[in-house]
Amino acid sequence: MTKIGIIGGTGYTGVELIRLLARHPKAQLRVITSRSESGRRVSEIFPSLRGVCELEFSKPDSKSFAECDVVFSATPNGIAMSMARELLDAGIRLIDLAADFRIKDVAVWEHWYGMQHACPELLEEAVYGMPELNRDAIRGARLVANPGCYPTAVTLGWMPLIKAGLVDAGDLIADAKSGVSGAGRGANVGTLLTEAGDSFKAYGVAGHRHHPEIAQTLTQISGIPIELVFTPHLTPMIRGIHATLYAKLLPGQDVDLQKHYEQAYENEPFVDVMPAGSLPETRSVRGSNICRIAVYRKEQRVIVLSVIDNLVKGAAGQAVQNFNLMFGFDEKTGLEIVPLAP
Amino acid sequence: MTKIGIIGGTGYTGVELIRLLARHPKAQLRVITSRSESGRRVSEIFPSLRGVCELEFSKPDSKSFAECDVVFSATPNGIAMSMARELLDAGIRLIDLAADFRIKDVAVWEHWYGMQHACPELLEEAVYGMPELNRDAIRGARLVANPGCYPTAVTLGWMPLIKAGLVDAGDLIADAKSGVSGAGRGANVGTLLTEAGDSFKAYGVAGHRHHPEIAQTLTQISGIPIELVFTPHLTPMIRGIHATLYAKLLPGQDVDLQKHYEQAYENEPFVDVMPAGSLPETRSVRGSNICRIAVYRKEQRVIVLSVIDNLVKGAAGQAVQNFNLMFGFDEKTGLEIVPLAP
Amino acid sequence: MTKIGIIGGTGYTGVELIRLLARHPKAQLRVITSRSESGRRVSEIFPSLRGVCELEFSKPDSKSFAECDVVFSATPNGIAMSMARELLDAGIRLIDLAADFRIKDVAVWEHWYGMQHACPELLEEAVYGMPELNRDAIRGARLVANPGCYPTAVTLGWMPLIKAGLVDAGDLIADAKSGVSGAGRGANVGTLLTEAGDSFKAYGVAGHRHHPEIAQTLTQISGIPIELVFTPHLTPMIRGIHATLYAKLLPGQDVDLQKHYEQAYENEPFVDVMPAGSLPETRSVRGSNICRIAVYRKEQRVIVLSVIDNLVKGAAGQAVQNFNLMFGFDEKTGLEIVPLAP
Amino acid sequence: MTKIGIIGGTGYTGVELIRLLARHPKAQLRVITSRSESGRRVSEIFPSLRGVCELEFSKPDSKSFAECDVVFSATPNGIAMSMARELLDAGIRLIDLAADFRIKDVAVWEHWYGMQHACPELLEEAVYGMPELNRDAIRGARLVANPGCYPTAVTLGWMPLIKAGLVDAGDLIADAKSGVSGAGRGANVGTLLTEAGDSFKAYGVAGHRHHPEIAQTLTQISGIPIELVFTPHLTPMIRGIHATLYAKLLPGQDVDLQKHYEQAYENEPFVDVMPAGSLPETRSVRGSNICRIAVYRKEQRVIVLSVIDNLVKGAAGQAVQNFNLMFGFDEKTGLEIVPLAP
Repeated sequence: MTKIGIIGGTGYTGVELIRLLARHPKAQLRVITSRSESGRRVSEIFPSLRGVCELEFSKPDSKSFAECDVVFSATPNGIAMSMARELLDAGIRLIDLAADFRIKDVAVWEHWYGMQHACPELLEEAVYGMPELNRDAIRGARLVANPGCYPTAVTLGWMPLIKAGLVDAGDLIADAKSGVSGAGRGANVGTLLTEAGDSFKAYGVAGHRHHPEIAQTLTQISGIPIELVFTPHLTPMIRGIHATLYAKLLPGQDVDLQKHYEQAYENEPFVDVMPAGSLPETRSVRGSNICRIAVYRKEQRVIVLSVIDNLVKGAAGQAVQNFNLMFGFDEKTGLEIVPLAP
Repeated sequence: MTKIGIIGGTGYTGVELIRLLARHPKAQLRVITSRSESGRRVSEIFPSLRGVCELEFSKPDSKSFAECDVVFSATPNGIAMSMARELLDAGIRLIDLAADFRIKDVAVWEHWYGMQHACPELLEEAVYGMPELNRDAIRGARLVANPGCYPTAVTLGWMPLIKAGLVDAGDLIADAKSGVSGAGRGANVGTLLTEAGDSFKAYGVAGHRHHPEIAQTLTQISGIPIELVFTPHLTPMIRGIHATLYAKLLPGQDVDLQKHYEQAYENEPFVDVMPAGSLPETRSVRGSNICRIAVYRKEQRVIVLSVIDNLVKGAAGQAVQNFNLMFGFDEKTGLEIVPLAP
Repeated sequence: MTKIGIIGGTGYTGVELIRLLARHPKAQLRVITSRSESGRRVSEIFPSLRGVCELEFSKPDSKSFAECDVVFSATPNGIAMSMARELLDAGIRLIDLAADFRIKDVAVWEHWYGMQHACPELLEEAVYGMPELNRDAIRGARLVANPGCYPTAVTLGWMPLIKAGLVDAGDLIADAKSGVSGAGRGANVGTLLTEAGDSFKAYGVAGHRHHPEIAQTLTQISGIPIELVFTPHLTPMIRGIHATLYAKLLPGQDVDLQKHYEQAYENEPFVDVMPAGSLPETRSVRGSNICRIAVYRKEQRVIVLSVIDNLVKGAAGQAVQNFNLMFGFDEKTGLEIVPLAP
Repeated sequence: MTKIGIIGGTGYTGVELIRLLARHPKAQLRVITSRSESGRRVSEIFPSLRGVCELEFSKPDSKSFAECDVVFSATPNGIAMSMARELLDAGIRLIDLAADFRIKDVAVWEHWYGMQHACPELLEEAVYGMPELNRDAIRGARLVANPGCYPTAVTLGWMPLIKAGLVDAGDLIADAKSGVSGAGRGANVGTLLTEAGDSFKAYGVAGHRHHPEIAQTLTQISGIPIELVFTPHLTPMIRGIHATLYAKLLPGQDVDLQKHYEQAYENEPFVDVMPAGSLPETRSVRGSNICRIAVYRKEQRVIVLSVIDNLVKGAAGQAVQNFNLMFGFDEKTGLEIVPLAP
């Protein structure tokens, strides 16, 4: 059994990691830290885990993870980077579900995240943990930067087009809609049921941290700099992201897009290219690690619809998928959960 | 025009008061105070009020309400009582939407609200502002204690039974369900959409502040001490309270309950006794000052269903109704709003 | 008092018309027809209207509206056109909330609506009832085609850009999100709470009836044919449309967009251009006739956010606004309803 | 592998059966019938099952289930009874998720379900499939009547009190709240998101089919006739039942209720007695087969809170639990799903 620690288990990515790892046949949860809840049982905070996880939250200190093979960091941005060096030096691998290691350019990272990076020297080593893009590198990685939720939905939606150079890299619009769990479990007026319920709005239109992350990945895939408009929206539901992606085919391109997407993802266990004309619903992936995609063409426009569960494929599930790769398990281990619908 | 001040206009009862008073033909909003938001326009915090209310929040001080005829206090518990004496001495009438003046017994109040009462000498003068119960006293009142949301739904539901002595006062069960706005606009994990959405739970089963308030009013109506089980629940919606009330007819009582209720409320502008067999929905009163009631009999059991909008008849609307009575206006002025359904 | 009839009052636009007209000081509701519910009281179907509307639904026949000055048709598509000739000949004006008279080109209409048009000769006379576009023509109109909900949000969002020729008419993307009430009150699996709740999806991506309506209006405003991608989505809320609109400034254009929008709408009673950087929420217009707009520029891209209540400004409210114009009343009469938030 | 058929797989209990059985290590789904959808793939109707279930719906006929060991009937009431005799004669066991075999008294059944019973002679043999009550009988059963959703939540909530004779059997009130999925997947105005969303109401107050079912079971447990008030309510969420149960301790009873409940259920794999003072939320059991219970005492009153997922422990999950018992598998097989929260 692989011994596992979780840094900061009181948020939604934390409870999801526990849900997935508690039933994972190769994983053994040993330590879950929380500064604010140390000493309380995990299942006291999350009654859904009663009978599933008997651990208590422990205070994080330098010895916390001594016996672990791998640590998942499910904390706010800025924590993982402060512990990474020590963990890696102790031979413990690290999967960071926050953003500390996602952006390769320190200056860009520091601009968007408003703090100084604690270990820029690790950025080059860190592998961006999107298996569909970096599967081999993830296998050997010590340090994995788990992708953001929007970047996952958007990148998987566009990857086949960008990789094949089919569309104008200077004319990309991602109109994305997220459930409220994307904002985390912190007390906050804006995400109260009374504020976010029965209403819809855009946010971060002037700029959002996931923009440079998406741009970096798409540019890497494309080979040429991409230009992206990214508009996130808050939709009155708990889980789920729906990305509606607009691109323009380059002149002369006349590929069968449906076939192109099916081939691109034919060996991917967690990407489902739906039949032509499909309309993926976020609930069709609720609780599961699947990304479902539909692709439409209207003259030279390509419209891609891409849905994920932001807490699973967009966070904890993708982290477990990376964990499986890193430790040589079947990539699907512990992740063959049937989506919950209705 | 009657000149109006509001203490603490940044919560849900505050925004509702503004919504109602801004269109009230006899009212002129002059001052809205807020410690945290002073200097900002009201409509910046509540964009629904753009074009409706051009006031800024002002810092509360002793001169704030000098020019007002009446002040509505829409703050948390404990604030109105600290200002009441000064306002009344200045000849300004006060309608408190919090609980400071609802409970006549200081010891009971201090037990449930966990603080010392600042002006117990005013408790006797304060009129419990339920027009269906105390209309005449409200007319002449300087100080009105606006009822709580649950107490409004429960008391109106049972009043005709209790007043006529039809039911066993020692065997009353109120199973009540509220939308999340009852918890207010404060940042709070428990009322996030992600926590309170798509889920249902009881709370305060061991004890809830509205229990002594209901008990006091029903005992006053009954003339004998009543015994009440009161169980509040949180339901995943924004507005509305549904009280399901269980009582037992005293032996030998065989009244036509439907007729009894219709007669009891025939002159009440804001209580609607629905036809026999009706199932009132909270949305049928959304945004309005109406309480709708249906009454069922099953052998000796009486089941009453009572719905209100907790922010209107359960708070700001009832306060405006009291204001109308206090200043001699038609009781319905400014309150003839058609419920918003769907 | 202007005497009013409603054809088909059992849907959501019907109940909204009644809500608005029942409190309209110049309107008197005389007849509300319904084939399926004739003989039942309106308030039996819509308990929110108890005490507001005492009418019964009557069976529609040729004499139904003899005494009316104006008839609102709130039926499915295809009904109003079958009655229009008779009503107009009897001197009764007609406001159709369905789509029968919105499209000028009969062939286009018949293609999208799948039936033969019953009175194509009236299409030229019919005025597209968007006051911000056609105020003067509406004043004199006998027959008004009330705009669709999406077309209202999209057209108001783009009108200042298109009218001034600032953007590339061949590169327009409207990504629109609607609450479920847009699908009407018919029994339907897809809009059950269990199917549409807590989930998000696109629909009509391959083609939607509001596309030709939007294209026709924008082309009329532009003077040159526009090309539009229009993607509607279903969002798990009751009311509201949020249109996110993407356009490209033509080369050399360097207008102050904020000022341009504010000037364009400065005299419009129901269009609110919000301050720069605003993020309009659909709930900020819930139950009201207001369209709120925010405009952003990112290099040559213009992003416009436009929100309405689909049942009010997108249907019944705009119809009442048209009615006010047609009968010479102040345009705001009966429509100064404060949005319901939370 | 046990070969399984499902009658009527297009409703919510159907999709839940497939979700659970597709991952059940001892079960092999062979046939899923549907009159309306025959020939279509199951995953076309339920995209959440893409990659999980490759079967097509087949038209039901007398040979459909020839190769099956057991058939689950997930159809509306009245279908299973028309096929039961034939299936049993062919040596196929039957688990009916509808109500055909729940009520032992034919006259009572026919009164509440409004049809003639097709095989009353099987009622005595049918075992009421609540493992906590009838585990041994279920093991040997050919025909299992799977309990209703409300009866499951209510019976499990009260069983320890009734069995021990602690409470007055003549004074029981069950105030129950259900998510909308309890109403099924049929097209229906009342359960549209626009009608049932953001609103709360009681229904079936005058009488509900689950009343006689609960009364029968509690009377059987009690040994003396019980008297029950049962009030179901519709709450704006997808899944979940919360039963709030009121009973009165018989004079002189002074048991430690918390300990009593813990002991009563200590060996039950799917009943979780929560610590004293807990407030079970429906989401804490979402997607899982668990019933969570909290018990409160207030003088002589006992208040029990009992929550289940109506589609799992209240339907498909309990059916799979029964299946496990009938075929000698570990009772938890295929049911160790961690609840999905948030």
